[in-house]
Amino acid sequence: MNRNRRHKQATSSEERVLRLIRHTLKPEFRKLVDSGIRVAIGDDAAVFRARPGYETVLTCDWFLQGTHFLLDRHPPDAVGWKCLARAASDLAAMGAEPRCFLLSLALPTSRTGAWLREFLNGLRAASQKLNCPVAGGDTTRHEDVLINITVVGECRRGRAVLRSGAQPGDAIFASGQLGEAEYGLQILRSTRGYLNSGDPLLRKHLYPEPRLALGAWLGKQRLATAMMDLSDGLSTDLPRLCWASGVGARIEECQLPVINAPATREKHVNAVSLALHGGDDYELLFTVAPKNVAKIPQRFAGTAITRIGEITSARKTVLINKKGPAKTLPQRGWDPFRENQK
Amino acid sequence: MNRNRRHKQATSSEERVLRLIRHTLKPEFRKLVDSGIRVAIGDDAAVFRARPGYETVLTCDWFLQGTHFLLDRHPPDAVGWKCLARAASDLAAMGAEPRCFLLSLALPTSRTGAWLREFLNGLRAASQKLNCPVAGGDTTRHEDVLINITVVGECRRGRAVLRSGAQPGDAIFASGQLGEAEYGLQILRSTRGYLNSGDPLLRKHLYPEPRLALGAWLGKQRLATAMMDLSDGLSTDLPRLCWASGVGARIEECQLPVINAPATREKHVNAVSLALHGGDDYELLFTVAPKNVAKIPQRFAGTAITRIGEITSARKTVLINKKGPAKTLPQRGWDPFRENQK
Repeated sequence: MNRNRRHKQATSSEERVLRLIRHTLKPEFRKLVDSGIRVAIGDDAAVFRARPGYETVLTCDWFLQGTHFLLDRHPPDAVGWKCLARAASDLAAMGAEPRCFLLSLALPTSRTGAWLREFLNGLRAASQKLNCPVAGGDTTRHEDVLINITVVGECRRGRAVLRSGAQPGDAIFASGQLGEAEYGLQILRSTRGYLNSGDPLLRKHLYPEPRLALGAWLGKQRLATAMMDLSDGLSTDLPRLCWASGVGARIEECQLPVINAPATREKHVNAVSLALHGGDDYELLFTVAPKNVAKIPQRFAGTAITRIGEITSARKTVLINKKGPAKTLPQRGWDPFRENQK
Repeated sequence: MNRNRRHKQATSSEERVLRLIRHTLKPEFRKLVDSGIRVAIGDDAAVFRARPGYETVLTCDWFLQGTHFLLDRHPPDAVGWKCLARAASDLAAMGAEPRCFLLSLALPTSRTGAWLREFLNGLRAASQKLNCPVAGGDTTRHEDVLINITVVGECRRGRAVLRSGAQPGDAIFASGQLGEAEYGLQILRSTRGYLNSGDPLLRKHLYPEPRLALGAWLGKQRLATAMMDLSDGLSTDLPRLCWASGVGARIEECQLPVINAPATREKHVNAVSLALHGGDDYELLFTVAPKNVAKIPQRFAGTAITRIGEITSARKTVLINKKGPAKTLPQRGWDPFRENQK
């Protein structure tokens, strides 16, 4: 900082934004070294040293005002937390461990003050919780707040869990309760004024926690034959896993881990529909060979794990309920290019 | 593709956009293996295997409609070329070699047809030229075209050239002609109708070529004490290098490699101002210890290399010309947060 004060030329507006980012997110030196970061934020690029015996797992994720969050409804610190948490969820889905991230941030000049500080506080909290320090990024101006996060992670060589390994007869599991985040979004949208961020359903929407420990355990134990995270809703994501594996699926409606909404709200909620089509849950969807099904616990690190169906060879996704014959499950989860998105 | 046709559920609008991206950019299997990509586009994340003895170099770069390009003036294939080329320029500046990239793309439904195809053709051309295949990405919808590129590269352990190594007495060099891209932008803005993309100055603006071979050679030979790429203009970028190194600089105006504009246009052009403040050149700026100055050739792979000044201990950037005493160089390059940006 002293050096910077003396060198007065380097104080353009962009530099001021960069300095706030560095100041808020800068990890301790020890943390950088532990994360394999050799050159951090501030140079043309970051330098990362992979551990011997590990492969590098890379993902990038949009988080855009209007598309993924509402600037006037979502608290800035929740935007900061969630942009990293949801990107890290892609690593959980591979059975990988996050190591560091790059932050691409575009924002209007009007958001470079208090909003930016709160955003960075939320991002720092997620970075610390996920043990994933910042390594670099890019900052520019735009009339909307635009965020893109690249997360760099690692898994042992050849141990990444792909979408493509599911076989007919494998059991299908999901972590957590499905539809919680969608219901949280409905609460957020219908609430005027003060938001009670202590509401567990609202918290799931605002501050999701990627299932990193579960994903890493399933990968390490070689228990999951295929895995992905549920970001767009079960009815949209499950066909992607099936397509990648060249298989189909049968889901039991009565097995779905639907939300347990407070009694006062229950009558307005179609919990099954939320579980099938609600997005943003960041739970894990995975398949397990019949011989290993007994090794899957009912809870892992406090999170429920539920068997919801079975992989089939029929190349379609069907839903079984008590009322009648199996029905093809329509893809009604999140699709950004579909007009009239709910 | 056959598998996909049979599995009719997986044909949402987003899937169609993803399929076009995969189909256009998909590298040959051999190329994937050569680039260290173990899992490519289509899973939750990409898997990359670093070569033994190398470090991974990571950068991400915005390329936004309105901020970085004009949707109605820039040809879509130039947008595709440039978004990858300018991101790879950050790797050139570290002396690193690109290995693969991630594409984050947000676009309106109206741009998912012809515009997207041409964009992808330009991106594929850059990907092939730079030997940098796609490894993954994220796609969503937005009313503006938004691009963010993460490039993953490698350099030998401990050989990355940082901004922070310049010492007083080091000579300052720049590659190419400075101000060309800015002048190309002026041509583009003042031209109505058909663009002659054969014009070399326009080409430099539309299809920049990152100085990867030069950067890698300087890093390998340990000749550059500090290096960065010129993206925002010399008067803005040089103080950043100086700040990182805790030094100052003296630039000789008469040594600047100014553009050689056609005679018919010359009278309207302040070539020195363009060289000092023009952005988007993606040339390399680097410093060399006095003992190594004689090892720097006048040309490298067809690109001129010019000595433009010297590093000083004075912690400011000054410009020397024949007309009078040294003047402090104002930072008038690109700053996205400055109002009234030219």
